[in-house]
Amino acid sequence: MADIYMEDGVIKQLGENLIVPGGVKIIEAHGKMVMPGGIDVHTRFQMPDRGMVSADDFYQGTRAALAGGTTMIVDHVVPERGVGLMAAFNQWREWADSKSCCDYSLHVDITEWHKGIQEEMESLVKDHGVNSFLVYLAYKDVFQLSDSEMYEVFSVIRDLGAIAQVHAENGDIIAEEQRRILDLGITGPEGHALSRPEEVEAEAVNRAVTVANQTNCPLYITKVMSKSSADVIASARKKGAVVYGEPISASLGTDGTHYWSKNWATAAAYITSPPLSTDPTTPDYLNSLLACGDLQVTGSAHCTFSTSQRAVGKDDFTLIPEGTNGTEERLSLIWDKCVVSGKMDENQFVSVTSTNAAKIFNMYPRKGRIAVGSDADLVLWDPDVSKIISAKTHNLSVEHNIFEGMEVRGGPLVVISQGKVVLEEGVLHTTEGCGRYVTRKAFPDHVYKRIKARSRVSAPTASSRTSLFGLYCVRCPVLWKVSCIVEGVLYCGRCPVLWKVACIV
Amino acid sequence: MADIYMEDGVIKQLGENLIVPGGVKIIEAHGKMVMPGGIDVHTRFQMPDRGMVSADDFYQGTRAALAGGTTMIVDHVVPERGVGLMAAFNQWREWADSKSCCDYSLHVDITEWHKGIQEEMESLVKDHGVNSFLVYLAYKDVFQLSDSEMYEVFSVIRDLGAIAQVHAENGDIIAEEQRRILDLGITGPEGHALSRPEEVEAEAVNRAVTVANQTNCPLYITKVMSKSSADVIASARKKGAVVYGEPISASLGTDGTHYWSKNWATAAAYITSPPLSTDPTTPDYLNSLLACGDLQVTGSAHCTFSTSQRAVGKDDFTLIPEGTNGTEERLSLIWDKCVVSGKMDENQFVSVTSTNAAKIFNMYPRKGRIAVGSDADLVLWDPDVSKIISAKTHNLSVEHNIFEGMEVRGGPLVVISQGKVVLEEGVLHTTEGCGRYVTRKAFPDHVYKRIKARSRVSAPTASSRTSLFGLYCVRCPVLWKVSCIVEGVLYCGRCPVLWKVACIV
Amino acid sequence: MADIYMEDGVIKQLGENLIVPGGVKIIEAHGKMVMPGGIDVHTRFQMPDRGMVSADDFYQGTRAALAGGTTMIVDHVVPERGVGLMAAFNQWREWADSKSCCDYSLHVDITEWHKGIQEEMESLVKDHGVNSFLVYLAYKDVFQLSDSEMYEVFSVIRDLGAIAQVHAENGDIIAEEQRRILDLGITGPEGHALSRPEEVEAEAVNRAVTVANQTNCPLYITKVMSKSSADVIASARKKGAVVYGEPISASLGTDGTHYWSKNWATAAAYITSPPLSTDPTTPDYLNSLLACGDLQVTGSAHCTFSTSQRAVGKDDFTLIPEGTNGTEERLSLIWDKCVVSGKMDENQFVSVTSTNAAKIFNMYPRKGRIAVGSDADLVLWDPDVSKIISAKTHNLSVEHNIFEGMEVRGGPLVVISQGKVVLEEGVLHTTEGCGRYVTRKAFPDHVYKRIKARSRVSAPTASSRTSLFGLYCVRCPVLWKVSCIVEGVLYCGRCPVLWKVACIV
Amino acid sequence: MADIYMEDGVIKQLGENLIVPGGVKIIEAHGKMVMPGGIDVHTRFQMPDRGMVSADDFYQGTRAALAGGTTMIVDHVVPERGVGLMAAFNQWREWADSKSCCDYSLHVDITEWHKGIQEEMESLVKDHGVNSFLVYLAYKDVFQLSDSEMYEVFSVIRDLGAIAQVHAENGDIIAEEQRRILDLGITGPEGHALSRPEEVEAEAVNRAVTVANQTNCPLYITKVMSKSSADVIASARKKGAVVYGEPISASLGTDGTHYWSKNWATAAAYITSPPLSTDPTTPDYLNSLLACGDLQVTGSAHCTFSTSQRAVGKDDFTLIPEGTNGTEERLSLIWDKCVVSGKMDENQFVSVTSTNAAKIFNMYPRKGRIAVGSDADLVLWDPDVSKIISAKTHNLSVEHNIFEGMEVRGGPLVVISQGKVVLEEGVLHTTEGCGRYVTRKAFPDHVYKRIKARSRVSAPTASSRTSLFGLYCVRCPVLWKVSCIVEGVLYCGRCPVLWKVACIV
Repeated sequence: MADIYMEDGVIKQLGENLIVPGGVKIIEAHGKMVMPGGIDVHTRFQMPDRGMVSADDFYQGTRAALAGGTTMIVDHVVPERGVGLMAAFNQWREWADSKSCCDYSLHVDITEWHKGIQEEMESLVKDHGVNSFLVYLAYKDVFQLSDSEMYEVFSVIRDLGAIAQVHAENGDIIAEEQRRILDLGITGPEGHALSRPEEVEAEAVNRAVTVANQTNCPLYITKVMSKSSADVIASARKKGAVVYGEPISASLGTDGTHYWSKNWATAAAYITSPPLSTDPTTPDYLNSLLACGDLQVTGSAHCTFSTSQRAVGKDDFTLIPEGTNGTEERLSLIWDKCVVSGKMDENQFVSVTSTNAAKIFNMYPRKGRIAVGSDADLVLWDPDVSKIISAKTHNLSVEHNIFEGMEVRGGPLVVISQGKVVLEEGVLHTTEGCGRYVTRKAFPDHVYKRIKARSRVSAPTASSRTSLFGLYCVRCPVLWKVSCIVEGVLYCGRCPVLWKVACIV
Repeated sequence: MADIYMEDGVIKQLGENLIVPGGVKIIEAHGKMVMPGGIDVHTRFQMPDRGMVSADDFYQGTRAALAGGTTMIVDHVVPERGVGLMAAFNQWREWADSKSCCDYSLHVDITEWHKGIQEEMESLVKDHGVNSFLVYLAYKDVFQLSDSEMYEVFSVIRDLGAIAQVHAENGDIIAEEQRRILDLGITGPEGHALSRPEEVEAEAVNRAVTVANQTNCPLYITKVMSKSSADVIASARKKGAVVYGEPISASLGTDGTHYWSKNWATAAAYITSPPLSTDPTTPDYLNSLLACGDLQVTGSAHCTFSTSQRAVGKDDFTLIPEGTNGTEERLSLIWDKCVVSGKMDENQFVSVTSTNAAKIFNMYPRKGRIAVGSDADLVLWDPDVSKIISAKTHNLSVEHNIFEGMEVRGGPLVVISQGKVVLEEGVLHTTEGCGRYVTRKAFPDHVYKRIKARSRVSAPTASSRTSLFGLYCVRCPVLWKVSCIVEGVLYCGRCPVLWKVACIV
Repeated sequence: MADIYMEDGVIKQLGENLIVPGGVKIIEAHGKMVMPGGIDVHTRFQMPDRGMVSADDFYQGTRAALAGGTTMIVDHVVPERGVGLMAAFNQWREWADSKSCCDYSLHVDITEWHKGIQEEMESLVKDHGVNSFLVYLAYKDVFQLSDSEMYEVFSVIRDLGAIAQVHAENGDIIAEEQRRILDLGITGPEGHALSRPEEVEAEAVNRAVTVANQTNCPLYITKVMSKSSADVIASARKKGAVVYGEPISASLGTDGTHYWSKNWATAAAYITSPPLSTDPTTPDYLNSLLACGDLQVTGSAHCTFSTSQRAVGKDDFTLIPEGTNGTEERLSLIWDKCVVSGKMDENQFVSVTSTNAAKIFNMYPRKGRIAVGSDADLVLWDPDVSKIISAKTHNLSVEHNIFEGMEVRGGPLVVISQGKVVLEEGVLHTTEGCGRYVTRKAFPDHVYKRIKARSRVSAPTASSRTSLFGLYCVRCPVLWKVSCIVEGVLYCGRCPVLWKVACIV
Repeated sequence: MADIYMEDGVIKQLGENLIVPGGVKIIEAHGKMVMPGGIDVHTRFQMPDRGMVSADDFYQGTRAALAGGTTMIVDHVVPERGVGLMAAFNQWREWADSKSCCDYSLHVDITEWHKGIQEEMESLVKDHGVNSFLVYLAYKDVFQLSDSEMYEVFSVIRDLGAIAQVHAENGDIIAEEQRRILDLGITGPEGHALSRPEEVEAEAVNRAVTVANQTNCPLYITKVMSKSSADVIASARKKGAVVYGEPISASLGTDGTHYWSKNWATAAAYITSPPLSTDPTTPDYLNSLLACGDLQVTGSAHCTFSTSQRAVGKDDFTLIPEGTNGTEERLSLIWDKCVVSGKMDENQFVSVTSTNAAKIFNMYPRKGRIAVGSDADLVLWDPDVSKIISAKTHNLSVEHNIFEGMEVRGGPLVVISQGKVVLEEGVLHTTEGCGRYVTRKAFPDHVYKRIKARSRVSAPTASSRTSLFGLYCVRCPVLWKVSCIVEGVLYCGRCPVLWKVACIV
């Protein structure tokens, strides 16, 4: 019930009956909703994969994003082993700066581990606005880190004030299963699902949560694809873990039954890792957890390959390049499945599509909010529009859309990026390369206030065993700061109840 | 990092370096936090109980509330059977208007059920700003309603757009257990806990959730006292139920081991229903669920009786009047147990002590928010102050404080109510009777957007069995609106996946 | 790998290469399995229902049972209100004695509650070999007892050393939902499922468990039809409750989607309460819990009505008489779903179809075991046989079979009842009225050893509050026998750890 | 109520009023219980550890076992890397044969992985009566295997028909935490607990379960020490996994608060891995799960070191040799905590202390049962005796007993091993070296009947992708590629078990 006045890509005024300069373009929102533009927190545009590059580059990818109401994306930098983080980061910056039609930021993936990497991480955080790094527990002998390495990386991340992201699948088991499935003579896309059962995803999530708890490092699970995996996250949160879960367009909108499609190209279009679950009740479950707060953020993990690219794996499913579309459909899908069905109200919708991402990755309130001073990234949303998703009409070049034929209610009428109308009356007006790199500061309050409160004492200086006792709380699994001393008894600030320290000198 | 300018009890301006009229009182917040005043969503001041009246009246009660940083309370109207809701409501209004030192509102308890009650509920909602009614599943032969009555009350509440509150304990079992315990010769306060085990609370919560789901009525459980009960709520929410849980100062701060105190008066001071849990890990568990969002709102259920009043039950615990203190301690307790320990950050603290209550009960953004146009109810919070709770220093007349000797960190430095400084430098400046009654509209968006989206179709008009088929979704347990028809197949809008209707003509 | 010699209906010898008298019939078991005959722990043959009698009487019912490998049934006596337990019991005895083709016993249902009933229960236990009574939480205004009544009945049952059985559904909610569904114009069999959602079953199970725990009475849930209900039982057992769950042929073998069959008569044939779940993954789930021990016993709840009988409810689903077939199919269904699939081995199969029932209801080792002295009720089982269930071939007169068209592997080759071959080469050789009534003693060890160990002290004799303290354990919810006194401190025998009593004189 | 006649170490007759040869020793059991001797399924007598050998050798260890009512033990062979399984096995045989006072068998631990190990495993199973192998997920750079290696070992074990045992802790995390804790200056025994938190145990159990499910290999978790770990096992079983859990005397009887004892030697006596939980409610929880069947087997993991041996780690907790006592106390502890408290009856007690172990490891009915032909290993149990455990009276040489001062009810009056009375009137009559090695066959029915039913066939014969389609598996929600064809029936490769294909083109 208010007017919004934007200038220079920023919201300048908010209020009723604003008086604005002449010549200003006026968009009537009568009856529609105005909300912050979506943030697609996980894209992989023009991603290199074994000699190929994914079909949608930063131009095509961000155009599709904007068409769906998303006004910012965060892409993943994937350094080849030996290349170094900084070199890869610069490469991605170059690609994105020249092509992106909307603002963007970059996560950096840790694909190997040594001292040099740690130094590059520090530089990226301090000088280049990166506050999130992803670790792979799958892709054995390629990207996969061991548990020891994960422990060390998390420790570094925590000290830097960044977020640890994890691609959670057990790569050891997958490698064995792939061999077994191929040995059985199964070479088609269904082999992808058969060799990566749901348990293997949940196992890795559980392991990552364990290491994050030990290192007191905030954790963010990318691509939550199964009920089991979501359950592990929900249960860890209930116990107090600082962990976030990111279901994606694909897992919220469809399922893995398509891997058995008779049409090889169709089946191959669904290849992504972790795979879509073959349990068809998964999307509803994930949408429910998103609604009740057990999951918090959504991305698309958009990374498409054309059928001819996928065909490199026609005789061996392990060679099919991975990734699905979803950056364009994300908002409508979630609106349809969550808001129309009564799982969420509009405020929650904005949280899971935009605001939560902005808060976790420290871009709030510049992004994810409609407020004076925030970026003018807005969507005029029509809850009543209805549309059938199809490869024939999507803003991508690939031949398949994994949501083909699905009808969704709710969609953007007008999209404003950097204060400019980029979608209106169904037509895109985008500018290649206008997207700006958004830097993100370390130690986001939303995440680190709690992490800091939990942080452990540096080191007890006491030298003898006996004198050490005063520093322990008998019930805690680890050393905690003793918070108060009452009547000669030592208590710690984390225990469910105050416990007497077992032995005091 | 901003200035707040208040006038006429309302926030007029927010911003940096505001220029304000001369003579305006200026309070420096340097380094402290400014937050919306707390809302104590459950009080029972000067509550009549079998010929007695609880020790703290609206004057003393609201003074204590203000002393702890709470600037609004919501009290319960408890009509004696036969008196009528409206008469009781008017009585409570009279009491509160003449004595309350801060703004207040009123929940109305449904203590009997017949046609006339329904009409009074309608009038209270439409003409008197009430949008919440409480039903008792305990107090057999006094207030307790049967499951059938609960079903009918919930149906009425949903049609009126109000919130169903439930006092959840199985009164039938309690009555039997009380008899058994008394027969065993146990007459002291410990009999109260022995006759009301945790399972009896969880059972009733589960029953209320079941009825609320059937009637599509929003549910609010008052006084969540046990882990089991909280678990039922958390699990219902995960399945999509619109249910809220209210732990109270007592259950968040202490436990039921005190019922076995050798000092009868001490033991009796802890008597409340449901009782405090005898499991000493309960407070930490409830604080954790509050932090992760499984529980949402906190109140005090403040209702104190002096030792001489309690003494009426000295030979029979079933006669001891019920209720504990907590309106003064609530904010500090939660700060200490949740923020200091790293379970929550400050924003979450404000949510569970103020904002969520305002949203659920439709007082937002007038209450629970710092914004231009909101009421000037504010707290300047000092995270570093530390204090030991004691009956010697609390702002009540009763001889006991159930948190006696507990040290809490965090407390209000300055409290502002209706734009006036009511607490400063440890001194209260309150005005008896200045509290205003706050009306609350029906159909709060925060709650009812989802309820409405879920509402069922009125009635199928088809007259024959066969033609009815088109309206069912084979998977749903109940009738749901069919949301779309694609290629001659009927789908429903609630299912996890689209299912073909089993049989179609 | 042994011979079994039977004489006079009893197993006389077991061993290798037994030498038996000439003229003895010899059955070669080469390669097949010999197992104790099945016990169908829940039948309702020739059950009166609102002026009708169910289609299969004790002759037809027990013939069908024998045809499927079941050599003993336990039927339910259902006294009309006002008739009295003993009169009804005698009536059932008369019916069964004259018609039953195999041994039988009787559960007695408590359909009303007053002092006279208690006396009749005592007599039934002490003089007539009854050790199980069923309470209804559904069928409002007909059989339904209140929670208070349930509490009292359970207390009586525990004192008598019997088992409390419960038909678990919330009758209050069902009555309301039936009205609502009928008001919507829905009159067909699907209304049965719509008015009795799964939650309503689970709610009642949870309530019964709560009351059983309070009264320390062993509990047995008849007809476990849904995942939710089974989960409540499993979780109660994990916490130590003495509770057993009985899934039935119908819930283990099929689901509730049939209520939407276009054919009214087909849909009506599935009517039973609690209804079959509309979640098609339910049967697999229940079979899994049966395999892992979370559920223990299986019956058929066999109670069939012909289509013309069901037709009395053709315009109102609430009038359709309830019950499904299953006594003949039970063993093959479970073999197929559990043993063939690798959920169970053969020993577990015998446990859930026979032995566990015999132990719980105190008929072991006379029934449920192959041992010298046990009854000669045996089955020669063929794991390789395969059969398609159909109304065309079943041993019943009704026109429908709820497992129509289902193929099951495993079936009886030879069935021996009372030492006589009653099934051989597919032909039944039964004798009407030869079935004997099997008496069952109170206080079955299998159930009551634990109940007794948990039993509470009778009454503290101490007269003053202070002196009572010595008898409490501060952590226990109830009074427990203090098991030992060490060094002036009192401990209780039930606590997870030994806790000091809070206050001691 | 029967007599037992033993001769030549075997039970020869069972029955009432047996007539026995003159001169036979007769023991009256009047009022006491006769039960099969206990089987301690996990011992580590005279175990070599970094140059030391654990304090109790096979003589002292088995004497202590017999004193507590245990008549058979299964010890672990721990080959040093490079030594080979067979050489180590022979070494253990030699030690045990010369010293053991009761029958014994041997598990073999897999401490490294290569082709040669696989061949030795095969030989051990086929020629030496070994059917169980243990894998370590902890002890990084010493015994720890990677997930890939675990996968391969499990595959071999399944093909051999043996049981996979797992020492479940995440060695990578532990190594990091040990370094961190030592860096903090913590060197005492409490560092052991601080560096091995409960989550690290549960994580490894979860991982092992995942790999066991993938390989269809039966799994046995040794030393279940925490609630979290037990929960993982219980939940896996509910989903159908063939997994067994072994809590030990230590975890059932005490907790990890002792690691903070002021007395270093006392604290060090509790060092074992995984460590005792610091949550004092753990023992009760584990006893409850043992009672309800979620855990099945108990051992002692007996491996003691004297204080002077432990002292090697006085300045570095990571050097303290690991292991606790418990072989003597196991039966009394479980009786006291489970039978006296009403968690179990006597039959369940025998199951978890003896019979289940015999069945899982294929020694039944020779061991774990009282039957004609079974070994004459018996205990006459006195439920009324009471005893205080103390190092002063135990049958060990070490100075500490971790159950010091604990009073337990229930104990053996008479113990018979190999038909000889070895304990009577409190006096042990044992013979060094009389214990026999008990061979155990592969493919125990109790375990492998289900494994076999689930096992997958080699490879589908279908040659083209397309022609495979159209094959449904009745249990799967969707089309699955059929992985095998057996006897004209089609199975799918994903189902937990083999299911018939519903429809075939």
